Amino acid sequence: MTREEKFMRAAIKEALKAKAKDEVPIGAVVVMKDKIIARGYNFTETSNTATRHAEVVAIEKACKKLKDWRLDGAEIFITLEPCAMCAGAIVNARIKKVYFGAYERKSGCAESKFPILTDSGLNHKTEFSGGIEEKICSEILSEYFRGKRRKSADLCTDK
Amino acid sequence: MTREEKFMRAAIKEALKAKAKDEVPIGAVVVMKDKIIARGYNFTETSNTATRHAEVVAIEKACKKLKDWRLDGAEIFITLEPCAMCAGAIVNARIKKVYFGAYERKSGCAESKFPILTDSGLNHKTEFSGGIEEKICSEILSEYFRGKRRKSADLCTDK
Repeated sequence: MTREEKFMRAAIKEALKAKAKDEVPIGAVVVMKDKIIARGYNFTETSNTATRHAEVVAIEKACKKLKDWRLDGAEIFITLEPCAMCAGAIVNARIKKVYFGAYERKSGCAESKFPILTDSGLNHKTEFSGGIEEKICSEILSEYFRGKRRKSADLCTDK
Repeated sequence: MTREEKFMRAAIKEALKAKAKDEVPIGAVVVMKDKIIARGYNFTETSNTATRHAEVVAIEKACKKLKDWRLDGAEIFITLEPCAMCAGAIVNARIKKVYFGAYERKSGCAESKFPILTDSGLNHKTEFSGGIEEKICSEILSEYFRGKRRKSADLCTDK
């Protein structure tokens, strides 16, 4: 297993924690000098808070740990291409590199929708690499949404 | 004074709280049914946290107050055009309309850099109106950065 796959597996573990809470299963870990320094998973529903995405949670924990808003040299591993908010948070925290699993072709802000991470006009540029353990990351999300659709179909039949 | 100017003045009051803590002076208020339900100012330095921008702080307070991550029908008044992270948070929280004071021509994500608020591919579209009390909002920021430059010039002379 490569280094990237190993850290992505840790992010996948976080995504599974979200799944266990019936949240959209997305997970993230922040890595500094080859060690995981912070973990996070999406819990917007249980927290009733729009900003509780996996990346924001992990970044805030990392800032707290290092007592610095600048995470210079840090890497973040995420199971899904980050949304605009999370890509912006990654740039604001000056993270060095993003590794993500599945692509979010509709609204992802590494390369799919807007190139927020790498735009030269912003204060910082963050490298990225997509498709790490893509199959597992995609399958966890697809399975979650299939389950949601099944549940709502059952509710319609019950009526 | 118009309704928009009145709420922007409340956001300016928040920006001045940031200034008093020697933070980049940016403030925001969330308005629901013509009442301010949450306030926030930038305090990334004192909190050592990259995500503590005025808009994120105000949105999180509003979510907490309404016990809902969806701020349907809410408006947000911000002294500066939002960055990518904040524009993303605004869209994620499904805010109806953004009013901002000064334009951030380099990295603002209402219209200057990326049209995050109004892009039809994202899950939600947020209207916006810029330039509300623009002169005051810009001046507070310019004065802050002039002061910073003066301080660092003094430090150089002291050496």
